[in-house]
This record gives sequence, C-alpha cells and structure tokens, in this order.
Amino acid sequence: MTALTLWRNAKLATLQGSTPWGWIEDGTLLTQGDRIVWVGEASALPAAQAKQVEDEYDLGGALLTPGLVDCHTHLVYGGQRAAEFEQRLQGASYEAIARAGGGIRSTVAATRAASDEELLASATRRAHSLMADGVTTVEIKSGYGLSEWDEARCLRVARTLGQTLPLSVRTTYLGAHALPPEFAGRTDDYVDAVCTWMPALHAQGLVDAVDAFCENIGFTPAQTRRVFEAARALGLPVKLHAEQLSDQGGAALAAEFGALSCDHLEHLSESGIRAMHTAGTVAVLLPGAYYFLRDTTLPPIDALRAHGVPMAIATDHNPGTSPGLSLLLMLNMACTLFRLTPEEALRGATVHGARALGLHDRGTLAAGQRADFCVWDLEHPNELAYWFGHNPCRRTIAGGLERTL
Amino acid sequence: MTALTLWRNAKLATLQGSTPWGWIEDGTLLTQGDRIVWVGEASALPAAQAKQVEDEYDLGGALLTPGLVDCHTHLVYGGQRAAEFEQRLQGASYEAIARAGGGIRSTVAATRAASDEELLASATRRAHSLMADGVTTVEIKSGYGLSEWDEARCLRVARTLGQTLPLSVRTTYLGAHALPPEFAGRTDDYVDAVCTWMPALHAQGLVDAVDAFCENIGFTPAQTRRVFEAARALGLPVKLHAEQLSDQGGAALAAEFGALSCDHLEHLSESGIRAMHTAGTVAVLLPGAYYFLRDTTLPPIDALRAHGVPMAIATDHNPGTSPGLSLLLMLNMACTLFRLTPEEALRGATVHGARALGLHDRGTLAAGQRADFCVWDLEHPNELAYWFGHNPCRRTIAGGLERTL
Ligand SMILES: [Zn+2]
Ligand SMILES: [Zn+2]
Repeated sequence: MTALTLWRNAKLATLQGSTPWGWIEDGTLLTQGDRIVWVGEASALPAAQAKQVEDEYDLGGALLTPGLVDCHTHLVYGGQRAAEFEQRLQGASYEAIARAGGGIRSTVAATRAASDEELLASATRRAHSLMADGVTTVEIKSGYGLSEWDEARCLRVARTLGQTLPLSVRTTYLGAHALPPEFAGRTDDYVDAVCTWMPALHAQGLVDAVDAFCENIGFTPAQTRRVFEAARALGLPVKLHAEQLSDQGGAALAAEFGALSCDHLEHLSESGIRAMHTAGTVAVLLPGAYYFLRDTTLPPIDALRAHGVPMAIATDHNPGTSPGLSLLLMLNMACTLFRLTPEEALRGATVHGARALGLHDRGTLAAGQRADFCVWDLEHPNELAYWFGHNPCRRTIAGGLERTL
Repeated sequence: MTALTLWRNAKLATLQGSTPWGWIEDGTLLTQGDRIVWVGEASALPAAQAKQVEDEYDLGGALLTPGLVDCHTHLVYGGQRAAEFEQRLQGASYEAIARAGGGIRSTVAATRAASDEELLASATRRAHSLMADGVTTVEIKSGYGLSEWDEARCLRVARTLGQTLPLSVRTTYLGAHALPPEFAGRTDDYVDAVCTWMPALHAQGLVDAVDAFCENIGFTPAQTRRVFEAARALGLPVKLHAEQLSDQGGAALAAEFGALSCDHLEHLSESGIRAMHTAGTVAVLLPGAYYFLRDTTLPPIDALRAHGVPMAIATDHNPGTSPGLSLLLMLNMACTLFRLTPEEALRGATVHGARALGLHDRGTLAAGQRADFCVWDLEHPNELAYWFGHNPCRRTIAGGLERTL
C-alpha cells in the first residue's frame, strides 16, 4: 500500500459543497499516490489516517486550489502568425493576407512542413507556458494537419506531450476545422475523408473526443452531423465550435449527440441554451478569442446562468485568433469582459473545465479526486481573477507529485 | 579602466536609426561597466576594441532588445482591492462600495496603516512581476499616502526598491491624486498642502517629477496649475493624468509647463495634441486601464501619429483601475485594443517610455546608452506583441549585469 502524504496548514478553495469557494480555513489534505484520500479542517483529521502519514508538508498558510484545467486549445502547430498580426496592424486587409497565402492555410502548410520533433518542441514550449501558472490538465485539438497522416502526427504529438510532461492531456480530433487546399470546392468530399480517417485514428488510441467548426465560414450543420454520426459509431464523445460568428443551430445539434461541450457561443440562442441544459452540455467560454478578435457580441452569460448550464473558461490557444498562453489571464478576461464572478471563473477553469472533457475525477479538492493542486502566493482566491499579467503560482502538484518546470 | 564585455551572435532590435526595428541580423554588443560602448554587425567590430574584451557571451542567435521601461505605475500601496472587484461582479454598485469605505479611500487607509516594511515587501513582489518579463526601469508614483508623512514614506519605499533591486526607479510625487478624508470639502486647502509639502520631499531627494490627476473627479486645471507652479519653482519636471474621462484641457496646460508626458488621453483634443507636439511632451497610453475599465473611447492614435507625438506604453499598475503586472501584456493590448503596430508598441515600452521620464540614456541599443537589455526566446520582435500571457524573457542584463530574480 502506497504511503500517505499530508499537506497541512493551507487555506483551501475546494470548490466542493455549497459554501462559497468550498472554503476551508485551516485545511489539511491527504494524498496517496496520485489521489486525494482526505480533505478537511485540520482538527477533523481522523487519527487512524494521521498514523499512516509518511511525508508531511507545512504549506505555511498558503492558498490551495485544484489544478487548472484548460479544456480548449489548439496547442500543436507549425510556425506562428506574428508577421500576419503585424501586417494587419500596418493596414493590410484580411483578403490581402489570404491572397498572400496567410491565415489558417499558412499554419496548415507550416504544420505539414514541420517534423514531428519540431511540432513537439514548439508545443512543449507552449505547454510550459500554460503549466507555469497552474494548468495540470489540457485538451489539445488537431485541425492544422487536415490529412490523415498529418492529423495523426499532431494527435500523436499531443499524446507524447502527456507522456513526457507532468501534465494530463486529452486529445480531440478536429479534422473538420478547415478545408485543406487539395479539397478546394469539395467540402462534402473532405467531410467524407474526415469521417473515413476517424476509425484508424481512434484505433491508434489518438482520439478522446471529436470536434468540428460549425460556422458559415466552416462546416454546415448537415456536414457537422455526419462527423458526429461517425463519432457516435465509434462511441466517441463530441464537442463543437458553435455559434461563434453566427447562430447556426450548432449547439442544439451538438446537444442532440449529448455533446460534452459547445464552445465560443457568442451567438447562442435561447433554444440552444435549453438544448444544452437538457443534454448536460458544458458551455465553454473563450474570452481570449473574444478579446483578440475585438468581438462585441457577448455570449449570453445571464441566460446560461439562469438555465444552470455550467460555464467553463479556456484559452482557445491558437496562432490565428487567440495566441494567449495563460489560463489565469483568461480568468481575469472572463470577469472583466464577460462579467463572470471570480468564483465562476475559477470553477470554469477547474471543475467545469474538467466536465467539458468528460472528466469527473478532477477540478475539486475532495477524496477520490486526482491529486492535482496549486499553491498560490495569494490571500484569497478572488485574487486569481483580479491581478492580470501576474503569476502567483508557487508550487504545482500533479498526480500527487511536485512539479518543477 | 573597466574591462570590455562582448555579447555576440544575437539578432538586435536596436530601435536606433531609420530601418524597421533598427534591425541588425548578426549583431554584436560591447559593454563596459553599466554602459554600451559599441553596437553593430559582428563583421564591423573594430579590431582595437576586440582586443580589450575580457568576457565574452555567445547568445546563440537569440533576439535582443533594449530593457523595457514602465513609465507609469502606482506600485507602492497597502492592501489590494480584489474583494471590491468581486463585489462589483456580484452586482454591487460603485456607490454602495464607496459608502462601505471602498474605492481609493480604502487603499489610502491601508497604505497609511501599513508599515514601511509591509509597503516595501508588497511593492517588491509587484516589482518582481514587472521585472520577470524584462522591465529594467520603472516609474513609481506616490498618491496613496496623501499626507506629508505618508507621501514621504511611499516615495522612500520607491527609492529603496531602486537601491535593493537590480532595477532603475524614477519617483513621481502625486500628492494631487485624490482628496484625503481629513480635507473633505476643502480641496483648495489640500492643494495648498500638496504644494507646501513639495520642497521638503524634494530636499530629501525623493522627487524626480511631479504629477497630478486633472479630472472632473480629481483636481481642476486651476488647482493643477498651482501644483505645477510649485514644481517649477523647485526646477522639477511635471507629468499629468490628463483627459482620461473628459477633456479638461489638461494636456495643453501641462504642455505650457513643458511636461515630460501626458498620460491616459482618451478624451484628448486636437489642440491638446498640437500643444503636446510643440512642447515635445510624450503621450503615455495605458491600455490596461482602458481594458480593465471597459472603456470604449480610444485615445486619438491617428492624430498623435499624424502630429509626430511620441507614444509610450505603460502598465499604470494600481489596485483600483489596472491591477496588471506585465508590461509585455500591455504591448499586446496596445496593438489589439489601440491598433498600434508591434514596433510602435515596443518603442513605446522602451525609448519613448524613457523619454516620458526625461531619460535619454536608455531605450535603444546604442553606444553611450545604459547596458539594459533583454534576451528573448523569440525569432522576431513582432512576437513580443503577438503572444499574450506568455513570458519569453530568458535573460535580462541591467546596468551591464545579468539579473537573477
Ligand atoms: Zn478553438
Ligand atoms: Zn495612473
């Protein structure tokens, strides 16, 4: 039997139970291997368990929260688009940039041209940035390969990240992200291909979920449905980039397939919200993309709240519309731009983020949960959302082990 | 004679000369003590100087820029206002928070209640955050003490920061920041006091410049003029929080006193711009406050550009309206929200920031300048403004010495 480790003298935001923040003022945590086995007030620690403790850490009264969960990223890609960002600010139009081979096509070309090692190296650097302020679980989508070979390569790099870093990785197959040049004018054929590649990718253990970009500049609801049917045939859960630029009815479609999450949602309708509520689908809000695109249409936060749809927060890290690499900054943006409360924002980046990935073993501090937690140089968890451009993360424990970067 | 140190094999954004970024592809830098003595292409290094080199660093082709200059902060204060941030997001009005003793009054009370050691400790933590992504010079304003004793304490803490950290600190006396409770209803008397305190503060070596908050909720132009006249009598340069919420004609007033900078400027008029241009006053843009306050009135960037008014970028770090602690994030916000180009943003956080402090010995990589520079894990300087929530700063050299935090 693995020994018990005691973490004492901490203020805990457990996000568990009905009190604000699931607050425990003089908190103690017991872990065994990669699991939490007991959480509570120090005075309530059972004597039987106290006897089995082998290691003990005094946290000096520091604040502890669950490890952060970034449930929506596009972390694996070749190149970057800083030059395009600069050109746009110098006055170049989107059209001019597209004509010059820019936009997502340039990222697809750079991804295909990059070696596996290059893709892994750049994704590792970006993962380090996310980990630096407390991310312990990250979702990574494919979607810049857009061929069976390159989608597999990107998903494999994502899997490798999870094996080489002290970080849990969930992979999402997003073949239906954009139309690759070799399928120009043949969107339906490409959707067929995306569906055809899926079983082999899944057989290689590369796919935890399936996603699509349902939008007037992406794939239609009918095409999205075909992708979802292919996923269902394999028993794979689905997610959707839905209603970012227009209301396509994507959320209701995804809910029909019991989607784990619908993401973006700036143009989500009341009926979409009801469908998500009924299906238990999480609303993933992406304030970094909203900010970077200077969007002005807010997601329907009040209606999501009113219907009790859980709201997650993620970085949506990608080179085109959200080159942000801090989930903590997204907490501030979720509050500042979307008017979430600091507690909603933290729940969004922990327990609701985990739920958006179908993970129920993390995101709170409770017995039975994974021992993923962060020690913060802060007095109160509301400060996690208040400061911005600041990294108060002092220690991260991932799967019961202290992480060094 | 101090030995020469050679920094070779770097890509230099010197921000010097007329080429974009002052770019040098295969760059070499020579430093002597705290100064740069030579910058150029490796192939052009004079043999005479090469012979005197004692230490040599190979930078492995990394990108180098001048150290960053944060020319507008309120870094020294007691307490913080995360609870107030949370209350507002839970629906409390500004009025309700003010009635409960919140707002700037709570920071003044917490600052007065804090010991010198507490003020120094919290300001040091915040300075470390700014330094982490490359700040080598920071301006720090008083303005939360609002008594002669407490203003002196805050300015002394700022000076101490500059002596204890590898960081250049410039102090600004901002007694005319807000009306302290003991002067309620007696604003003119308080302005008299601010002016009366100034000579003693200056005599103690605590004041590099004088600032005021000229606004309908702050001090009138007539009151600001009195503060500026007191500064002029002491030979101290002035700066101004001007036209943030309304056009008070503050910029023109400040220009009349040859102000180093006018800061905020969302409501700056054409005549204010002309006056600033004539006086050589720098426009300090504060995108963090614009973002955090969800402002919608942009500063007149195009007109500032058209008139050739230099634009600086700063954090405006303060607990009420801009609790941000990353100047690099301000580069992204300056581009994303204010549509500056990445090069304008970098110049704003280096050479123009320095000029806003009256410093002409830093902000570029050139012979004679201070040896303040940053080594970045980036290919191109446009990436400094592109990524956000990411810290690519690998090394910082401040005054010729490598800095470790
Ligand atoms: Zn996305
Ligand atoms: Zn200010």
